[in-house]
Amino acid sequence: MQIDGRHYRTIWVAEDGWSVEIIDQTKLPHVFEIARLTTVEEAATAIRTMQVRGAPLIGATAAYGICLALREDASDDALDRAAELLMATRPTAVNLRWALDEMAKAVRNLPRERRLEVAYARAAEICDEDVETCRRIGEHGAALIREHAARKPGETVNVLTHCNAGWLATVDWGTALSPIYQAHDAGVPVHVWVDETRPRNQGASLSAYELGGHGVPHTIVTDNAGGHIMQHGQVDLCIVGTDRTAANGDVCNKIGTYLKALAAHDNDVPFYVALPHSTIDWTLDDGFKIPIEQRAEEEVTQMSGRLDDGTVVTVDIAAPGSPAANYAFDVTPARLVTGLITERGVCAASAEGLQQLYPEHKPEGDGG
Amino acid sequence: MQIDGRHYRTIWVAEDGWSVEIIDQTKLPHVFEIARLTTVEEAATAIRTMQVRGAPLIGATAAYGICLALREDASDDALDRAAELLMATRPTAVNLRWALDEMAKAVRNLPRERRLEVAYARAAEICDEDVETCRRIGEHGAALIREHAARKPGETVNVLTHCNAGWLATVDWGTALSPIYQAHDAGVPVHVWVDETRPRNQGASLSAYELGGHGVPHTIVTDNAGGHIMQHGQVDLCIVGTDRTAANGDVCNKIGTYLKALAAHDNDVPFYVALPHSTIDWTLDDGFKIPIEQRAEEEVTQMSGRLDDGTVVTVDIAAPGSPAANYAFDVTPARLVTGLITERGVCAASAEGLQQLYPEHKPEGDGG
Repeated sequence: MQIDGRHYRTIWVAEDGWSVEIIDQTKLPHVFEIARLTTVEEAATAIRTMQVRGAPLIGATAAYGICLALREDASDDALDRAAELLMATRPTAVNLRWALDEMAKAVRNLPRERRLEVAYARAAEICDEDVETCRRIGEHGAALIREHAARKPGETVNVLTHCNAGWLATVDWGTALSPIYQAHDAGVPVHVWVDETRPRNQGASLSAYELGGHGVPHTIVTDNAGGHIMQHGQVDLCIVGTDRTAANGDVCNKIGTYLKALAAHDNDVPFYVALPHSTIDWTLDDGFKIPIEQRAEEEVTQMSGRLDDGTVVTVDIAAPGSPAANYAFDVTPARLVTGLITERGVCAASAEGLQQLYPEHKPEGDGG
Repeated sequence: MQIDGRHYRTIWVAEDGWSVEIIDQTKLPHVFEIARLTTVEEAATAIRTMQVRGAPLIGATAAYGICLALREDASDDALDRAAELLMATRPTAVNLRWALDEMAKAVRNLPRERRLEVAYARAAEICDEDVETCRRIGEHGAALIREHAARKPGETVNVLTHCNAGWLATVDWGTALSPIYQAHDAGVPVHVWVDETRPRNQGASLSAYELGGHGVPHTIVTDNAGGHIMQHGQVDLCIVGTDRTAANGDVCNKIGTYLKALAAHDNDVPFYVALPHSTIDWTLDDGFKIPIEQRAEEEVTQMSGRLDDGTVVTVDIAAPGSPAANYAFDVTPARLVTGLITERGVCAASAEGLQQLYPEHKPEGDGG
């Protein structure tokens, strides 16, 4: 997508042909800064500190992390160590495991001298696939927005989203925001309610930054406000992303998603979740088995922002000495999800729904 | 309650015998500072800028605002102008209207020369009544906490609260936190999940400050986290305050309360609302008729906090140029409320429930 008129992806191989560059998302929206990753350790740190975040982008960064590891040592041992290091960075997003499996499949049976080249090629392919996947998610999702627009001609369609599942969370386009960009570009009048998304404010900082940059009308609201605006008919549909979707349609996403799904259900507002296939955990039949990452309490008790002179500082915002807990994700049960928007189309949030779109994942002995 | 071992109320007449002193709550938890109010205009500003906040304390401050107005001019006109000025400060809390009505009733039929003395006496009485009311709310609410404690001997009872309905929101004791203080003081093991309560963070700043000061174990969580911890059995009951309760039991409280009530309902967690009689609007049979205050968008896009050197600064936290909406309250329908904890006991959140406790407010011709 565009930043100041120039097209960017969120991750790319630098001009030197081997190091990896990313947009440092911990600096947004205050400063646009590109960071350079030269080792697998730096890739792991970038994921852990959330310089890159968003399930698909975490996967892409892990893929390049494997490339950086193989540059130094192309042995099986090095490959295992790199995968282990990367796997430990964030426990919830399943794309990490998916990308590491893809990379292992691509290089494991090759002689060492061929591994590096194939790894870079596969990582680039994972990125390109993600872009195409997200573009298709956008097409299917935009059709849903158009349906709402058709029901209220001349009026704006109001979409609520939580956290950032935009192009900054993927390689390009985004998942939840891709339908919004495509509807907006096609002339459908769309307005986005952007949940602030405490504690790291990915909504107010990243989604608002993206939407503003693309010229999509939007309004930031606190995470607390979603229920009120749904009660008052100000939301036509919700679209969020996901860090891991269980095979039964339960959806794990940024903490607070479940509360919005409850409010949507209570007010008959459709609640959609947009996701690429790599986010589906076919091994889990219950979303409540997904491990929920707990992060540092300082993410809750401190906040970063810009002073008037542009300096970015971190301030303490809570009562001194009070402890905080920081659960990063919650699980929205499938019963609260109207539909899953995937690159293959929209399906029910259920084992049957997912299996219709992905018959290759039907459990064996299930007639499939 | 205690601050550094000294007992404070939130509002009192100063040593000069006429000016009014308050704890400036916009400075907490960073700085404990007492502000002095000398005119009705200063009282109105203190309410509007939230130097004082919380429905009962807003009422008490308005009562003293009338006293300050009468000092300068004890005419009917001046009384009307003062009431109008104070009434316009915050549209949602009904205690404001209640306190102004009480003050008018007390002084309106008196000769001018007697009004000032009676006004100060009535304002002091309103404060004393609030303290006693909150103490009783605490007794009734503590009994509920004790019931939960009895079901899990030796284990801690976990209470979730939203915003600040503690002693800082009242003259003393608090509404939602009064039961917690009384249970804690009686040796019941209680732990409080404190919702941060964006945008003004009254949970992380005021409730955590209060609970810490009183030695009650507590943990700050983002507003997003409540659903997750309820799903995982980490909340035994919720107790919140209210800015206005309709005669049918619908509850208007700080934005985000409705989302917690939905999560409590979805997870069979009892959801109680603590309130004094002055918070009940007997003229409204539907909570959705309560006017919802919209406040400045800077409350969402900016945040105040302490730098390492102790300086308190305000920083911009959102994407530059992105607009924000700031709805201050939402309405939780009575169907989601397990019970109302009042100074007269606990009742169902319904017209019948409220009328049983307050038979003097039964509609005429209703057999009462």
